Amino acid sequence: MSLGEELRRSIDGKWRHVREQSRVELAALDLAYDHSLGLDEARERVLDQMKQLVPTGIPAAGFRTENGGTGDPGMAVTGIEMLAQFDLSLMVKAGVQWGLFGGAIENLGTERHHEAYIPALINLDLLGCFAMTETGHGSDVQSLETTATYDPTTQEFVIDSPTPSARKDYIGGAAKHARVAAVFARLITLGEDHGVHCFVVPIRDEAGDDLPGVTTSDCGYKGGLGGVDNGRIMFDQVRIPRDNLLNRYGNVDEGGVYSSPIESRNARFFTMIGTLIRGRVSVGGSARAAAEVALSIAGRYALQRRQFEGVPGEETVLMDYRMHQRRLLPLIAEAYALRFAHNQLVARMDRLQTEADPDAHAQRELEGRAAGLKAAQTSFASRAIQECREACGGAGYLAANRLTTLRADSDVFTTFEGDNVVLLQLVAKELLTAYAKEVTGLDPVGMVRFAASTVADTVKERTAATQLIQRLIDARSNDDEHNLLDRGTQLNLFEDREQHVIETAARRLRRAGKDQGEAFSTFNAAQDHVVKIGQVHIDRIVLEAFTAGIARCEDEEAADLLRDVCSLYALTVIERDKAWFMEHNRISDTRAKAVTTEVNALLERLRPHTLALIDGLGVPESSLGAEMLD
Amino acid sequence: MSLGEELRRSIDGKWRHVREQSRVELAALDLAYDHSLGLDEARERVLDQMKQLVPTGIPAAGFRTENGGTGDPGMAVTGIEMLAQFDLSLMVKAGVQWGLFGGAIENLGTERHHEAYIPALINLDLLGCFAMTETGHGSDVQSLETTATYDPTTQEFVIDSPTPSARKDYIGGAAKHARVAAVFARLITLGEDHGVHCFVVPIRDEAGDDLPGVTTSDCGYKGGLGGVDNGRIMFDQVRIPRDNLLNRYGNVDEGGVYSSPIESRNARFFTMIGTLIRGRVSVGGSARAAAEVALSIAGRYALQRRQFEGVPGEETVLMDYRMHQRRLLPLIAEAYALRFAHNQLVARMDRLQTEADPDAHAQRELEGRAAGLKAAQTSFASRAIQECREACGGAGYLAANRLTTLRADSDVFTTFEGDNVVLLQLVAKELLTAYAKEVTGLDPVGMVRFAASTVADTVKERTAATQLIQRLIDARSNDDEHNLLDRGTQLNLFEDREQHVIETAARRLRRAGKDQGEAFSTFNAAQDHVVKIGQVHIDRIVLEAFTAGIARCEDEEAADLLRDVCSLYALTVIERDKAWFMEHNRISDTRAKAVTTEVNALLERLRPHTLALIDGLGVPESSLGAEMLD
Repeated sequence: MSLGEELRRSIDGKWRHVREQSRVELAALDLAYDHSLGLDEARERVLDQMKQLVPTGIPAAGFRTENGGTGDPGMAVTGIEMLAQFDLSLMVKAGVQWGLFGGAIENLGTERHHEAYIPALINLDLLGCFAMTETGHGSDVQSLETTATYDPTTQEFVIDSPTPSARKDYIGGAAKHARVAAVFARLITLGEDHGVHCFVVPIRDEAGDDLPGVTTSDCGYKGGLGGVDNGRIMFDQVRIPRDNLLNRYGNVDEGGVYSSPIESRNARFFTMIGTLIRGRVSVGGSARAAAEVALSIAGRYALQRRQFEGVPGEETVLMDYRMHQRRLLPLIAEAYALRFAHNQLVARMDRLQTEADPDAHAQRELEGRAAGLKAAQTSFASRAIQECREACGGAGYLAANRLTTLRADSDVFTTFEGDNVVLLQLVAKELLTAYAKEVTGLDPVGMVRFAASTVADTVKERTAATQLIQRLIDARSNDDEHNLLDRGTQLNLFEDREQHVIETAARRLRRAGKDQGEAFSTFNAAQDHVVKIGQVHIDRIVLEAFTAGIARCEDEEAADLLRDVCSLYALTVIERDKAWFMEHNRISDTRAKAVTTEVNALLERLRPHTLALIDGLGVPESSLGAEMLD
Repeated sequence: MSLGEELRRSIDGKWRHVREQSRVELAALDLAYDHSLGLDEARERVLDQMKQLVPTGIPAAGFRTENGGTGDPGMAVTGIEMLAQFDLSLMVKAGVQWGLFGGAIENLGTERHHEAYIPALINLDLLGCFAMTETGHGSDVQSLETTATYDPTTQEFVIDSPTPSARKDYIGGAAKHARVAAVFARLITLGEDHGVHCFVVPIRDEAGDDLPGVTTSDCGYKGGLGGVDNGRIMFDQVRIPRDNLLNRYGNVDEGGVYSSPIESRNARFFTMIGTLIRGRVSVGGSARAAAEVALSIAGRYALQRRQFEGVPGEETVLMDYRMHQRRLLPLIAEAYALRFAHNQLVARMDRLQTEADPDAHAQRELEGRAAGLKAAQTSFASRAIQECREACGGAGYLAANRLTTLRADSDVFTTFEGDNVVLLQLVAKELLTAYAKEVTGLDPVGMVRFAASTVADTVKERTAATQLIQRLIDARSNDDEHNLLDRGTQLNLFEDREQHVIETAARRLRRAGKDQGEAFSTFNAAQDHVVKIGQVHIDRIVLEAFTAGIARCEDEEAADLLRDVCSLYALTVIERDKAWFMEHNRISDTRAKAVTTEVNALLERLRPHTLALIDGLGVPESSLGAEMLD
């Protein structure tokens, strides 16, 4: 095997077979986005492509065998992610149908829903949408306004949008194709509001016309994702059978009496949301996968394009310029790093979702990790694809070279499935409160009150769990100016930064009293500090995953190369936050300057392996779809 | 006058009347981009819009009175920039016709060309394009391959594309509308190559068909700018009259003898390029203007949108969140800063272009400043518009809210009229070589050889020229921990950083010998250092312009507010490069932490004035074109 193949093997992870299968099977379909199509045509085309995906087995993998699936969650998310190598509109539309809509049915519904809907939604006999976000509430979904009021006389729920801001908005599939919606609405029965639950609501007839009381409309042109029919839904007293409540976590009997296995309304809501974790995993992975395509395109272009005479009589290939190396190689390293972390996340998710009795703490930790890696991978994708576009100059701006489409399509990934800034705060909140049961969602008072003095131990405890990491940290040189290329040193810097950022934030938050107004202003004054917790936490998770991944790599040459790539990743992160490390006396002035020197030295060392590193990303040349590389 | 109006007045600069006129006149036209149009329709629509611009007087302003214009360069670039408030496709297509094509005719041509073409191109009887970039050479235009070989027997030039990479590429207007091209080609006569010159070459007949020997093609879909018909041109031995050489800087007589007022081929080329400075000025200004629109949209949205309960019973308005303030207010401050710097640039350009005998050093300094501010404003626009899109969440992704269009259209601004990374090196080169006559273009050997020991004085000398700045610096406290809000301290930090970065780069470069190979590798190893020179130089220019602008503000309340805005700008820049200031002992650890504290304090102080600051940007509410604000 070539070095590139060895690298690919080692970063393909546990669902390598799905990746390999997709590289062949999906490439045989014609999935590239066609800019000449109008809105309607583009949407129809993507729907047609979805039909071609059914036989690949990817859709069925996402559902349990007893429900008509094949019970392979890891395959499901990996398969969706591989679509990102071809077209993000298809990835999103597939993700909405099988991941979000299907996921709501499977995870929030019970047997009757599984039987009625899952086989049909797998094979696309039933097209659905996921109607959570409203015009007035996107990030704060606990405050949704749509109501589902139980009427015991007819044993129906009445779905209603009481205000203009209660309108369901940005809903993929709602503009055109969805026949049914999984609608999140406040369940009200016998005069009491039990909070947000999910209901199956038919919205269109077979001819595609709105059903009585339902008014859909079209979000129209967007910044990208032209193949996805995002739309809006207003409900005017729409009646649905009582059975259409997805009643796994909350039920209403014939007489209207509400019951739930989870007593706290808050905890119930976040448990429901927690079961939908797969969406965040898919979105994060797909964004990174799109960035890998962009890096493969820009990287290959940089290896062939020449500009300006360097040594006499010879134009210099772009990749030989220090600035070009600085622009692309750290991003390639970051793609490797995030891939290892993502593989780990998928494996954990798969394990928890196939276990009989998953541990609640592990579930919550997984949710935090999925949220954090969603934020990290999507913001990485925006940065990386943008840099790739610019690094290809004017050629990069032509649709024929695909980078602008990748950029435009992936842009909203930082927003949907949780706004990144909100997600980072969620991650921080879990760490600050040591996953205290009492604190759920983004509740400033809870965060302030439960910012426990034990947070530091939480970090330590989990870190220690991974013996390899601890061994490396323990083995690091104790010399103040020890080698920045030493993994133990890097791991220690990352861990130490996280611990310090959490501790100091906790201290700031604890200063507030119990008055909610004061709690909010204390929280708000520290908001940038809280967001930083999320960022540095994910940085550590990623570096540890990379470290663990290298330990599993069986090829010596590939492992050696990965070690350099990992150091480039680590030092890039340190360089980006160098001021923090200096301010907090973690790095001396001299050592700080050495960071930049070491980064440049690593760039020089990795330069000869650029093509192997690109090959390792596993985007087949035939799937790049960039004219300038022909 | 309201505070917002006072602010607008003070940042509207010398061509305030043009801005005010445009805000009314252009708003009366229907210029908003229409996403439902296909490629052809969108291009026709923009061409129609251009015709409506002729009566505004903006096109004529760009040309000297003796050539049929009204001789107001400041008005010309300000008018083009104002188009960016409405549609960037229109701005670019107008900029190509009147700025680039027209500018080449006026500045590189002589009387016969002025008479023949200028009145016709002003009123759009003659549509032209600017055919400089080739597939093989975009940044390095001195290496263009197209040839213009003089044939004395017929007194014609023969224009030819000898290789596929000689194809003219990305040329605005070449796909469809241009009848004539200003073609940059190597002038060859009597067997000698005299370097790149510009020629007027007819490319299409009245019916729009390619003329014999000319093959145009279409660049097709792009990342944005759907209304601009970018295309390619290949020439196969196309004959044009000798008179079609734009012969101001190089002439060929009937017998084929070449003559030029500028002896050095290098100097001649860069003098020609230098006359085309207006394109860079327009592109920089327009990018910033587009960012101002985006900031006005996202800023107003942040003042009306609420999400999550903060104090009990009340959802918090987005702009009250610390993170949201951190995301938007520093960008608004940067827009103000860049506006002052841009106004200063336009005034200098106007002066030099209307003077009888402009100073050569001042001309060169102006070119550097235009290049640097083009890079700074366009990369600011990319960052700012992107942040605005994300800060508006899902709503920000809908075309109906305009942010994605602004983002997509302005994306290529970091690339065209000079790739930003290349431009920053050009700026650095001028500083490193103290504008030495011998060094032109991006010549590593020249840069290495002429990296003079006097560079530090160059910075000092020019700074001292502005007495106000020097006075403020002198008056700063000498206390090591002096107040970061003190303007003199800020100015001193910026100037000092620039001087140090230049000096140390010069020292590194001087280490190389005279061997060209070694010169290149020395230069290349220091390339990131060289790029930093460009960045920190522009930072200083901008802060000084802001400082000078405040001194001219006549309203006390507005001036007070501008002082805070200026400090926010300065501290944001310092915060971004905090590690550098610490590494080089310009800022102690304690003071470094204070930077962040002061930024947050400024955000709190500016928060109540957000709307006034947005109003000050001068984008009329009626021109915002964002549905979510209705």
